[in-house]
Amino acid sequence: MKVRDALRFVYDKQKKMFILGGIISLLDWDQKTYMPRKASTDRALQISLLSKSLHQLMVSDDLWKNIEFLTREKNVEKLSEEDRIVVERLKKDVEKARKIPTDFIERMSKAEATSYSAWEVAKKRSRFDIFCPHLERIVELKREYCGYINLEGHIYNNLLDDYEEGMRYERLKPAFEYLRDKLSRLLNKLESEKKIDLKLSKKAQERLSFTILKYLGLKRDRFRMDLSEHPFTTRLSTFDVRITTRYVKDKPLSSLFSTMHEAGHAIYELNLPKGRFRYTVISDAPSLGLHESQSRFWENIIGRNYSFWRFFYPILKRIEPALKTSVEEIYRYVNSVERSLIRTEADEVSYNLHIILRFEIETELLNGEIEVKDLPEIWNEKMEKFLGVKPKSDREGVLQDMHWSTGDFGYFPSYTIGNVYSAQQFYAMRDFIDDLDAKIDHGDFKEILQWLSENIHRFGRMYTSEELMRRCCGEGLNPRTFIRYIESKYLDI
Amino acid sequence: MKVRDALRFVYDKQKKMFILGGIISLLDWDQKTYMPRKASTDRALQISLLSKSLHQLMVSDDLWKNIEFLTREKNVEKLSEEDRIVVERLKKDVEKARKIPTDFIERMSKAEATSYSAWEVAKKRSRFDIFCPHLERIVELKREYCGYINLEGHIYNNLLDDYEEGMRYERLKPAFEYLRDKLSRLLNKLESEKKIDLKLSKKAQERLSFTILKYLGLKRDRFRMDLSEHPFTTRLSTFDVRITTRYVKDKPLSSLFSTMHEAGHAIYELNLPKGRFRYTVISDAPSLGLHESQSRFWENIIGRNYSFWRFFYPILKRIEPALKTSVEEIYRYVNSVERSLIRTEADEVSYNLHIILRFEIETELLNGEIEVKDLPEIWNEKMEKFLGVKPKSDREGVLQDMHWSTGDFGYFPSYTIGNVYSAQQFYAMRDFIDDLDAKIDHGDFKEILQWLSENIHRFGRMYTSEELMRRCCGEGLNPRTFIRYIESKYLDI
Repeated sequence: MKVRDALRFVYDKQKKMFILGGIISLLDWDQKTYMPRKASTDRALQISLLSKSLHQLMVSDDLWKNIEFLTREKNVEKLSEEDRIVVERLKKDVEKARKIPTDFIERMSKAEATSYSAWEVAKKRSRFDIFCPHLERIVELKREYCGYINLEGHIYNNLLDDYEEGMRYERLKPAFEYLRDKLSRLLNKLESEKKIDLKLSKKAQERLSFTILKYLGLKRDRFRMDLSEHPFTTRLSTFDVRITTRYVKDKPLSSLFSTMHEAGHAIYELNLPKGRFRYTVISDAPSLGLHESQSRFWENIIGRNYSFWRFFYPILKRIEPALKTSVEEIYRYVNSVERSLIRTEADEVSYNLHIILRFEIETELLNGEIEVKDLPEIWNEKMEKFLGVKPKSDREGVLQDMHWSTGDFGYFPSYTIGNVYSAQQFYAMRDFIDDLDAKIDHGDFKEILQWLSENIHRFGRMYTSEELMRRCCGEGLNPRTFIRYIESKYLDI
Repeated sequence: MKVRDALRFVYDKQKKMFILGGIISLLDWDQKTYMPRKASTDRALQISLLSKSLHQLMVSDDLWKNIEFLTREKNVEKLSEEDRIVVERLKKDVEKARKIPTDFIERMSKAEATSYSAWEVAKKRSRFDIFCPHLERIVELKREYCGYINLEGHIYNNLLDDYEEGMRYERLKPAFEYLRDKLSRLLNKLESEKKIDLKLSKKAQERLSFTILKYLGLKRDRFRMDLSEHPFTTRLSTFDVRITTRYVKDKPLSSLFSTMHEAGHAIYELNLPKGRFRYTVISDAPSLGLHESQSRFWENIIGRNYSFWRFFYPILKRIEPALKTSVEEIYRYVNSVERSLIRTEADEVSYNLHIILRFEIETELLNGEIEVKDLPEIWNEKMEKFLGVKPKSDREGVLQDMHWSTGDFGYFPSYTIGNVYSAQQFYAMRDFIDDLDAKIDHGDFKEILQWLSENIHRFGRMYTSEELMRRCCGEGLNPRTFIRYIESKYLDI
C-alpha cells in the first residue's frame, strides 16, 4: 500500500459520506417543508436506506485498514499538516462508530421509533405512565451504548461526547451548579413579563425576517428560507444551506428572533472550511454547543441588545407605521423575564435553569441514582426549587420535550454551553472591534461577522470546541463570564 | 435455492431500486424548484452517486442469478400470476441493462455533459457549427449503443424501445407518413392565429390552475404544485407526486393548459398499481407515449373542448370580472392554428408535423442516410415542405430542442404517439360514458377519471402500451382516429 493511494481512498470515502449526508439532509428538509403528508411511510424508507449506506461506509473494513495504515508512525510523518488533521479526526470518528454492533443500532432505532410514538400519545393525553416503559427501555439501551463506548469517568461522558466532543461530566457539573445557584437567585430579583401592544401581519413578520437576513449578508445563491412547523437549519452541500421559520400570530417578534437564531447557524455552516477540507470530517462544527453559540449570539447577544434595537426600531416602524411602542418599551419587552414552565418559551435568564434541570435528571438516571418511574415527581420538585413554579400536568412538565423519546441523552447541555460560549465570544470581540456598540447601532455587522468567521468558523473541526474557545477567547467554558453578561444586562433593565 | 427465497430477493432489490429512484427524483425536483444556484456542482455529485448505485443494483450478478432461477420452466409454474408478470418484465429490463458495458455508460454520460453545454452556447449564438462535432459524437455513440441492444429490423428500433417498449420503426413510419400528409394538407385549409384581449395577473392565473386541480380530484395529502422554469411532473414515491407550472405574462392561459397537462401525468402516476406491485417494475407506465396520452388528453382533448369552456368560462369570469371576450371567442383562441417555427409553441394540428420532421431526421441520421453537418439545411427544407415556413436562424430551427444534445434519440415520437392514443381513448370512452359532453359541460369528470383509471392506469406495466390500447380501445396506434378527431373539430371551427 502506498501513502498516496491510501490518502486518496480515505478522501474519496469521506467525499461519498459528505454527499450521502447531504442527500439525507434534503430528504429531511423536504419532509419538514413541502412533502405531502401521505408520503411519510416511503420517506422513512428513503432515509433509512441512505442512513444504512452511510453507516456501512463509515464502519467498513476497507476504510479502517487505510486509516490504520496512514496513522502508522512512519506514514504520519509523510502527511501534510492538513492531511494529518483530517486523518486523525476521521480515525476518532471511525473508531467510535466501529465500537457499536450493527444489531444494537437496529434495536436502538426500533426502540426510538416506538418510544417516539408513545411519547406523542403520552404528551397529548398528559399521561407519563404511557411513556414510562418506553423511556425505561431507552435508558437501558443508552447504558448498553455507554458500555460499548467506554470512556473514562462518569458514564454520562459517553453520551456527552456525541454532541460535545471532549467535554466531560466532571467539568460540566460544577459549572452548571454555579449557574444554577446564580441564576436562581437572580430570577428572584427580576420583574415578571412585560406585555406589549404590537400586532404584526404574517406579511410584516416576513418582511422583518428577510430584512435582517440581508443585513447579515446571507446570499440567495447559496441560502434560502422556507416555512416549517419547527424552525431549523440544515446544510445540503457546501453552498446550499437552508433555514426555516414560522409566523406565530400572537408573537409578533418570534419569527424575527427565530430567523436570527437560524441565520447564526447558517452563517457558520457557510463559512466552514473548504479547499482540501471541503468534503472531509473537518468541514463541520466541533460540537453542538459551539454551533449553538452562533445561533444564540445572533438571537440573544445581538438581537436582544439595546444598540440593535436602536438600529432596528426605524425598520420596524417603516414596516408597521401604526407602531406606538417606544424603542425602550420594545427593548424591555424582548428582554422580559418569566418563570415559565416550558423550556422553548424561556428567556435568556431562566432558559439555562430548564437545561440544568434536565442535565441533573439525565446524569442521575444513567448513573442509576434515580428511576424513570419517579421522573414526574423529581421534575416538579426541581422546577419548584430552580424556577419557583410547578407544572400542573406532565404535558407541561416531564413530557414537554421529545429528546428523550428519541434517545437524545447528552444533547441538552449543548444549549447552555452555547449560551455561555456566546457571551464569552461577545466579550472577546469587544476587546478587538473598535466602537462595537456604535457599529451595531448602525446595523453594521461586517466586523462581527468577520471576527466570527476568522476566529471560529474557518477552523471547522480542526480543534475541539474547548481548544477553539481557548484560542479565540483565552479560556474554555467559563460560566462566570455568562453571569457577568447576564447581571450587567438584566440588573440594568 | 428456493423459489420463495429467490422471490423475496427479487422483490427486495426492486423495492430498493424504487426507493433510490424516488430519491433521485427528489434531487432533480429540488434542483428545478428551490435549490440555490451555487449548489449545482454538489447536486450533480449527489445525483451521479445515486444513479451509479441504482445502475449497479440493476446489473448485479446476484439479481440476474435469482431472475434466471425463477424463470426456469419448472419454477415459473410455481409462481402466482402477479409474480410471474413482475419477474418476466423485470427480466427484460435487467437483460437489456446488462447488455451495456459500464465503460460505455461513462463515455456516454461524459459526452452528453459536454454536448449539452456546447448546445447551450450554440443555441444562444445561433451557430450550428459549434454544436456539430458534439452531435456527431453523440450519433456515433448512439450507433454503438444500438449495436449492444441489437434488436431486429431498423437500427432505430433499439432507441425507440427505451421510450416505447415494443414499438417498431416499421410500424411508425407509415403511420407518421399518413399523419404528415393529412396534417400538412389540413393546415392549408385553416386560418391563422386568433388574437385575444385577455390579461391575467399572476395571482389570477394561479387561482385558475388551483381551481382546475380541485376539479380533477388531486388531493393535497399526496400531491403538490410548485414553480419551475419548465413545467414537469415527477413521482417521489407511491403517494408523493409533484407537478410544476409557470406563469407567463403575455400568455394568460398558458399556465392553465400546462397545469392540466401535468395533472394528466400526475393522475396517472397516483393511480399506478399498488399492493403486490407497489415497489416493482410494474408500478410504472409501459411507455412514454402512453404517459403523454394522459397529459394530452387533459390538456387538449378536454382542455380545448367546447363543452369544457362552457363549464370553465364562468369560473374565468369570476376570477377576472373585467373579462369581455365571449366563450366562443375564447374557444376559438385556444384552438387557433399557426404555422409556427417552434415545437413547444405549436397547436394540436401542427405539433405533430414538428415531431414527424424530427423522427425522419433521427432515423435517417442513425441509418447513415444523412450527415450531421447537413442538418440545418435538411431541417429548413422539411420545415418548408411540412409547415410552409422556414426558420431564419438555427436557433429557431435545428437548435431549438435540447433532446439530441443529451442523446435522447427515439424520444420525440412519444409526443405524437401520445396525441394519437389520447384521441383513440376519447372515442372509446365516448361509447362507454352516457352524455359525456353534458358531463364535461358541468365540470363533472368523475366518470372520465374512472374510465382512465380502470382501463389504463391500474395496469401499470402489466402490458405494453400497444397491448393496453388494444384492450381498452380495440386497436393499437391508429392515426386515422386522430385525423378523424382533428378534422371533425377544426373544420368546424
